[in-house]
Amino acid sequence: MSTEVPSPPTWKALVDDKRARQQASIPADWLPLIEPHIPSPDTLDVSGIPDQCTELLSEQEREITNTIDVQVLLAKLASEEWSSVEVTTAFYKRAIIAQKLTNCLTEIFVERALARAAELDAYLKEKGKPMGPLHGLPMSLKDQICIKGLETTMGYVSWIGKYADRDAALVEVLYKCGAVPFVRTNVPQTLMWPESFNNVFGRTVNPYNRLLTCGGSSGGEGALVALRGSPLGVGSDIGGSVRIPSAFCGTYGLRPSYHRIPYEGAVNSMQGQDSVPSVFGPLANSVSGLKLFTQAVVASEPWRLDPLCVRKKWDQEAYELKEHGGGKEMCFAVLWDDGWVKPHPPIIRGLETVRKALQAKGHKVIDWVPLKHKEVVDTLGAIWAAGAVEDYSVTTQPTGEPVLATMAEDDDSVVESGFRPSNSETVSAYRLWQLHLKKRELRKEYLDHWEATAEKTGTGRPVDAIIAPVAAYAAPPHGKNRSAAYTTVWNGLDYTALVIPVSKVDETMDAKVPPHQFLSKEDEVNYHLYDPATFKNAPIAVQLVGRTLEEEGVIGMAEIVDSALKEAAP
Amino acid sequence: MSTEVPSPPTWKALVDDKRARQQASIPADWLPLIEPHIPSPDTLDVSGIPDQCTELLSEQEREITNTIDVQVLLAKLASEEWSSVEVTTAFYKRAIIAQKLTNCLTEIFVERALARAAELDAYLKEKGKPMGPLHGLPMSLKDQICIKGLETTMGYVSWIGKYADRDAALVEVLYKCGAVPFVRTNVPQTLMWPESFNNVFGRTVNPYNRLLTCGGSSGGEGALVALRGSPLGVGSDIGGSVRIPSAFCGTYGLRPSYHRIPYEGAVNSMQGQDSVPSVFGPLANSVSGLKLFTQAVVASEPWRLDPLCVRKKWDQEAYELKEHGGGKEMCFAVLWDDGWVKPHPPIIRGLETVRKALQAKGHKVIDWVPLKHKEVVDTLGAIWAAGAVEDYSVTTQPTGEPVLATMAEDDDSVVESGFRPSNSETVSAYRLWQLHLKKRELRKEYLDHWEATAEKTGTGRPVDAIIAPVAAYAAPPHGKNRSAAYTTVWNGLDYTALVIPVSKVDETMDAKVPPHQFLSKEDEVNYHLYDPATFKNAPIAVQLVGRTLEEEGVIGMAEIVDSALKEAAP
Repeated sequence: MSTEVPSPPTWKALVDDKRARQQASIPADWLPLIEPHIPSPDTLDVSGIPDQCTELLSEQEREITNTIDVQVLLAKLASEEWSSVEVTTAFYKRAIIAQKLTNCLTEIFVERALARAAELDAYLKEKGKPMGPLHGLPMSLKDQICIKGLETTMGYVSWIGKYADRDAALVEVLYKCGAVPFVRTNVPQTLMWPESFNNVFGRTVNPYNRLLTCGGSSGGEGALVALRGSPLGVGSDIGGSVRIPSAFCGTYGLRPSYHRIPYEGAVNSMQGQDSVPSVFGPLANSVSGLKLFTQAVVASEPWRLDPLCVRKKWDQEAYELKEHGGGKEMCFAVLWDDGWVKPHPPIIRGLETVRKALQAKGHKVIDWVPLKHKEVVDTLGAIWAAGAVEDYSVTTQPTGEPVLATMAEDDDSVVESGFRPSNSETVSAYRLWQLHLKKRELRKEYLDHWEATAEKTGTGRPVDAIIAPVAAYAAPPHGKNRSAAYTTVWNGLDYTALVIPVSKVDETMDAKVPPHQFLSKEDEVNYHLYDPATFKNAPIAVQLVGRTLEEEGVIGMAEIVDSALKEAAP
Repeated sequence: MSTEVPSPPTWKALVDDKRARQQASIPADWLPLIEPHIPSPDTLDVSGIPDQCTELLSEQEREITNTIDVQVLLAKLASEEWSSVEVTTAFYKRAIIAQKLTNCLTEIFVERALARAAELDAYLKEKGKPMGPLHGLPMSLKDQICIKGLETTMGYVSWIGKYADRDAALVEVLYKCGAVPFVRTNVPQTLMWPESFNNVFGRTVNPYNRLLTCGGSSGGEGALVALRGSPLGVGSDIGGSVRIPSAFCGTYGLRPSYHRIPYEGAVNSMQGQDSVPSVFGPLANSVSGLKLFTQAVVASEPWRLDPLCVRKKWDQEAYELKEHGGGKEMCFAVLWDDGWVKPHPPIIRGLETVRKALQAKGHKVIDWVPLKHKEVVDTLGAIWAAGAVEDYSVTTQPTGEPVLATMAEDDDSVVESGFRPSNSETVSAYRLWQLHLKKRELRKEYLDHWEATAEKTGTGRPVDAIIAPVAAYAAPPHGKNRSAAYTTVWNGLDYTALVIPVSKVDETMDAKVPPHQFLSKEDEVNYHLYDPATFKNAPIAVQLVGRTLEEEGVIGMAEIVDSALKEAAP
C-alpha cells in the first residue's frame, strides 16, 4: 500500500486561493449591478463608467463620490449632513466599480469598514463633536500599511496568509483622527517598479486608457483615486511611487521628506535600507486632501509612535508662505529637461501651461538649470542594488514564485529573471558607505546650486520652487515605463514634491516633433517611444518641488499654482 | 656613480615636524611666563594652576576667563565692557597654559584669531550693534571642524599637511553669529575611542588628576573647557564623545539629536556611515553656554548650508517646557544601572544627590527600568564594525602609521593592532541592512517603553526625563576606559542628552563597597577597577536624557536640575 505525501501548494495554487477569497469579499448583491456596465477590453477610457452605474450608485452616492474637495466632504461629515456610513458605502461601491475596471484593489473588507463608520457616527451623535480632523472619511491604503487582522501580501505570494498582529503606526494615527481605512490597493512585486503588476493580483491599468500603465508602485491608489473610488489615499514613494501614479492617473500627490509621516509597522521591500527611505504620502483629487492629511498626521505627534519621525509640529507660518514673500510675486523655475532625457511634447506643453498661468498671476518664471541629475539617480540605483537581489531572493524563496524581470509580460509568461541571486555580487558595507558619501556630496552641491539662484530671481530669495516634469512622458504602454529619473532625483535630494494635474494628451496639440540632438542613448529611445495616438487621453502633470522638510510651504505654493491653472483654463 | 634616491619621510618624521610647528605657533613671550608654574608630573590636580599664572594673566584676564556664565560674557562683549580682543587674548593665554598642563590643543593660530576679534570690535563700534548672538566670543573646536587655510589632522599622521580649502558649515554659521574660533583640540586616532591619544599629538590628560583620562573623543575640549581655557567648545558625539569628556572633566555638555547642528564640511572617521551619525554638540562651564550655542546655530537656519540638517526652528515653547507641565512638579526617573554593569559608588552618590535635590524642589523621582541596553550597544558596535577596519586602513595607508590597538601605551610602544585589515571580514550591505532593521525595532520598543511610563508618573505624562550615569565610573586611569555603553545607548536611540556636573570623588564618602551579585563578566571587571584612591578628585556627573530632537526641552529641564543642585549644595 503506497501513501501519497501531499506536496505543498504551488505558488500558483496559493494565488488562486487568494484571488478567490478576494472575489468572495465583494458583496454579492453589488456585482450584478456593476457587470452590465463593464465594457469590453477594447474600451480604453473607462473614467466615465462609474457615474453610469446608476443601479449601484444612488444619486446621493454619486454626489458624495464626486465631491473632490476633501475639505467639503469633511465639513459635511462633521455637520452630519452625510453620515460616515453613507460616505463609506458610497466610496466602497465606487471602489468596487474601479476594481472591475482597472484591478486596483487588494484587500476588501466592507463589513469591517462599515462597522468603523457606524462607530464614528455614534461617536459624533453622542459627543456632539467629531473624533478628529479626518472624522468619518473613508481612506484607501497602499498594500503595505498593515491593519490588524488583515493579510498584507504587498504583491508577494510568499506573504499570502501573513495576517498583521497590530496596526501600522499610520493606521493608529488615522484611527485617532477619525478616518475609516476601507480598502487596500495594488502594487508591483518588490515595490521597486514604476508600474503595478505582481504574481498575486496581476496588473492594474490606467483608467484613462487601459493600454497604458497606471504607474507605480502606488498604482492601485492612482487608478482608484482617479476613478473617485477613494477621496484620499496613501501611497509610498522611494523613487517616485506616489508621484508617478498621481501624474499618470491625473490625481494630486505629495511626496513628503524622509520621516515626516510615520512608516513604523508597515511592511516594505529592502527593510533596513535606510539610505534612501521610502516615505508615505497622500493622493487625492484636490490639494485640500493632501493638506488635510499632512496636517492631521503631523498634529497627532507621530513621533510618539514612530521613533524615526521628525519631532516637528505643523508650521502654519510656513504654510502661509512667510518664507516666500507671503505668496506674492514669487519666482518659480521650470525644469524643461534634466540634461539626460528630453520630455515628450505633451509634457512640455504641461510645463508651458503652468508657466503662463503663473506669469498671468504676476509671478516670475525663470529656467531651472539641472545639476548632475544622472549622477544622483545612478548613485541611488547603486545603493539599492547593494542588497536588493539578496532581499528579493530571501522574500520569494518560501514559495519559489519567480522574481519578475519585467512589467511587460502577462501572468502566464513570467520568466526567471536576470535579477536572481545567482547573478548578484556581494557589495561590502564599506563600499555602501562610499555611495552614501557620494550622495551627501551631491546633496550639498545641489543645495548650494539652489541657494545661489538668489542672484537671479529678483526677489532677494532663492527660487521659491521648481516646476518639473514627473516623467519624460505621460503614462506609457505597459512595460514601457523604464525610468523614474525625473522623480528619483528628488528622493535622493530629499526635496518635498507635489504633483499637480494640468491637462491630457491631445492628438492635435501634442503632435510629434522632429528629432532634436539627442542628449543620450536613453533620450533617443525615449524620442522614438512617442506617438500621440499611443498616449491618447493620458493625463499630463507637473511636480512642484520645494526644500527638504518643507511640506507646509510646498502645499501652500501648490494651492497657488493650482488656482492659477484653474483661472487660466479656457 | 650612484644616485641616492631620498626615501619619503617616515611617519615619525612627519610627526616631529608637525609638533615643532605647533610649538612654534605659541607666542614666544608667553612661554617663559608659564613655565615656572608648570609642576612636575607627580602633581596630579592641576586645575588651580591657571589662576596662579599671574605674570601671564592679568587680573582682568583672570576675571574674564573665570566668567563661566556665557550669557554674562556675551553681555559684557555686547556692551563693550570687554572687547573681543581682550576676551580672546585672555582665553588664548589660558588655553596655552591648559596646553602645557594637559596637552589639549592641536591647531594654534593666535594672530588669525586676534585679527578676527579686532574685526568684531570694529564692527560693533561702527554699526553700534553686535554681529550676531555669539558676538566676540572665542570658541574652541574639536580637531575635525575645518577652518579654511588650516590643517585638520584629526589625529592622523596621514592628514598632516591637509589644509582645508573651505570652512565647515558650522564655522560659517559661527562666523555669522559673531564668534571667534580660536583653537582646535585633541582627539584619539579614528575618534572611535573614549580617551584622547593619537600618533600626532599624543595624549591629553585629565586636569583634575593627570593619571586619569580626560575621556574622548572630544577629550581636548573637556580638558580645555574645564581649565577655563575656552568659554565654549564644540565636540562631536557618536557614542558619547561629547558627554564622556564633559563628565570626566566636570563640564556641561550636550549631545543633540542627529542632524540638528550642521556637520557638513567637517572631516570624520568612517565617512558615509550614516546609520548612527556623529553629531556636534557644545561643552561649557554653564548650561547657558549650551543653550546659547544651540539657539544661535538653529536660528541661523543651518539647513541652508547643510542638506542633512533638519528644517526645525528653535522652539521657545519647548524650551519653556510647555510639554512638561511648564517645569512644575515634573517626574524624573533615575537609571541606577543598565542591567549590565553597575556603576561605582561615586556615580551612585551622584545620582542620589540629583534625586534628593529634585525631590527638595517638589519634583517626583521614580526608578527607570532599562530595556535591552546591551542589545542596542551591541547592534551599534556591529554597524560600525561593518566597515571600520577598511576605513582605518585606507586612511592610515599613505604613511604607514600604526592603527592603535589600545589607548594605554605610550607613543613609543604603539604596536600593530588586531584591528588591522588582515583580520577583517567583509560584511555585505544586505547584512548591514539587517542590523539597521534590528536597531529600528529596538528604537520602537524603547519608545513604547518610555510612553508606557505615563501610568506610573502621576503627572498624566510619560517620565519627563531620565537621570542616568554617563559611565559606570568617574574618569579612569589611561587605557582603562573600555566601555561607552552608558552613553552609546542614547546615540542608538537618538535621544538628546545633557551632562551636568555634580561633585568629585571623595575618598571618605565614596568608599569601596562589598561585591554585589555581578550582572555580567564586565560588571565583575568593573567592580574590581574601583578604588577611591585611584579615582581621587575625579569629577562626578549625570546625564539628563530626553527625547529625539528635544534639545530645547532638555536644555530647559537641565536648567531646573542644575539650579536644584546648586540650591541643595552645602
